[in-house]
Amino acid sequence: MNFEGIYKSRKALITGGLGLIGSNLARKLLDLGAEVTIYDNADPESGANPFNLDGIRDRLRVIEADIRDESQLRIAVKGQHYLFNLAGEMSHIGSMKDPFKDLTVNAFGQLTLLETCRLHNPEVSIVFAGTRQVYGRPTYLPVDEKHLLTPLDNNGVSKRAGEMYHIVYHRVHGMTTCVLRMTNTYGERMRIRDDRLTFLGWWVRRLLEGKPIPVYGGGSQVRDLNHVGDVVDAFLRCAQHPKARGKIYNLGGEPICLLDLAKLMIDVHGSGECEIVPFPENLKRINIGDYYGNYNLVRSEIGWEPRISHRQGIKRMLDYYLKYLEHYL
Amino acid sequence: MNFEGIYKSRKALITGGLGLIGSNLARKLLDLGAEVTIYDNADPESGANPFNLDGIRDRLRVIEADIRDESQLRIAVKGQHYLFNLAGEMSHIGSMKDPFKDLTVNAFGQLTLLETCRLHNPEVSIVFAGTRQVYGRPTYLPVDEKHLLTPLDNNGVSKRAGEMYHIVYHRVHGMTTCVLRMTNTYGERMRIRDDRLTFLGWWVRRLLEGKPIPVYGGGSQVRDLNHVGDVVDAFLRCAQHPKARGKIYNLGGEPICLLDLAKLMIDVHGSGECEIVPFPENLKRINIGDYYGNYNLVRSEIGWEPRISHRQGIKRMLDYYLKYLEHYL
Repeated sequence: MNFEGIYKSRKALITGGLGLIGSNLARKLLDLGAEVTIYDNADPESGANPFNLDGIRDRLRVIEADIRDESQLRIAVKGQHYLFNLAGEMSHIGSMKDPFKDLTVNAFGQLTLLETCRLHNPEVSIVFAGTRQVYGRPTYLPVDEKHLLTPLDNNGVSKRAGEMYHIVYHRVHGMTTCVLRMTNTYGERMRIRDDRLTFLGWWVRRLLEGKPIPVYGGGSQVRDLNHVGDVVDAFLRCAQHPKARGKIYNLGGEPICLLDLAKLMIDVHGSGECEIVPFPENLKRINIGDYYGNYNLVRSEIGWEPRISHRQGIKRMLDYYLKYLEHYL
Repeated sequence: MNFEGIYKSRKALITGGLGLIGSNLARKLLDLGAEVTIYDNADPESGANPFNLDGIRDRLRVIEADIRDESQLRIAVKGQHYLFNLAGEMSHIGSMKDPFKDLTVNAFGQLTLLETCRLHNPEVSIVFAGTRQVYGRPTYLPVDEKHLLTPLDNNGVSKRAGEMYHIVYHRVHGMTTCVLRMTNTYGERMRIRDDRLTFLGWWVRRLLEGKPIPVYGGGSQVRDLNHVGDVVDAFLRCAQHPKARGKIYNLGGEPICLLDLAKLMIDVHGSGECEIVPFPENLKRINIGDYYGNYNLVRSEIGWEPRISHRQGIKRMLDYYLKYLEHYL
């Protein structure tokens, strides 16, 4: 899709813009001629990495502040046409250790942002980064948007509150909001230092350091993944599409079991090995089993579908980290 | 059901115990021989009314404190066998005016309570007062627990977060929790001063003061109601029933349209009139249309069903307010 006529010279705010999706989205928006502001608290525990802005830092504005800081938000939202709302806590384990931080960022923070927009920029078009985590353990596959929501951890509760507020602010206040429930997103500029946020980033590091990829519990679990390039495309489509207003859409991709994914990564890399390890106790209790999403709704209404194959996406990612690994350790 | 063998000499904590359900529950528990503690912030904007403890105040302990106050909660939960968790913001209009208070009480407050129980009394059996408000506008009737949740106001978001935390604390931490999604509850000791919390209380006041009952928008809207006696019964059943653990149950009752309800109240009272008035603008946007709940699940698993007819319940309520009206104005 050609976005040039849409985003050229338009103002876009990206919360969580130092992370995987936000920084790739910023690059794309700059290419399209948009004026970009990034809002991020640069939390070292999150996906934020200053190096993600390497080469583009002088072409955009960065506000280093917290999503709960109303005075900074007021400055940030002023005059924006688009708000790509990616800020948030996304660690499942972290949310069980410190549920209050998780709640205040994901619910109180999102509410603060929405109230600030309602009061100071009610016309802005907002796309919120939701998560498939809100479904909990699937009762059928693929999971569509009508699936019951039974989150298995505190992060699923707080993220759900955040997305509901977006829908309420559309319905009650007439604001333009849309929620994308993302599944596992991977690609260039993701956190790979540890497995705090994703297993996939951690696998990349292990692979590139010549260590075995740890596959939990046999590796038969099924997941779907999206390369960040496809996710960026979804955000850009939804922010400007009239049908997306007030909607919640699943993203999703081709299902793959974790052992096959590990083998694919090794194959693309040309070397490496994986090892089957038992499920850690703290992950076992919040493990959701198999998951893959039904994304027919966003496909039929918005025309989005993933276009980057797992092999292509993994190649891009590995090429990137072969070059820039040192900045992500 | 005979609860005597279950609750006699057992310790029960009731948050929000100064309100309609809490104070009636306290009376019932005292009758059953339980040791009762009430925890309530006595917010004049809420359903709390000191007169609700008239005649029983010296038979129970009252802690006047906020649900967000961890130090007071720690004292309150210690040694309790049962926790009837009724504290919370329930004003839809209030939640749109001050969404932050609504969120901090209903989500942060409930999380604080659950964390306090997990750390200091993980064995306590908790029944949480949820609300049918989490469903939003029904897409089918009667609404069962599988109905999609699309809250139409901030209060629906925060109440949903509160109930989800209860389920997460069961699933992840093994605690004994249960959620009752209540519909319109009415009866003796409800707030009738104004229409801030319920239309029904306000109707009672108008009727007893000889003023017309205001029926919004034609009165064809359908609702279900439960007399507080039936709701108390549901709490007592669920707190001690093994099948209720980790469950969410709808309550519900016989559907009635609002005009018929107004006429029934006038009939029971023996005089009065109603007037059709247009829907106020701020209520129109969050109005859910017709609603009545399917309560087959709690009936089949727990044996609960409403036993008090609308006519009986209204009679009890009107008799009460004829006697004690002055304490509720």
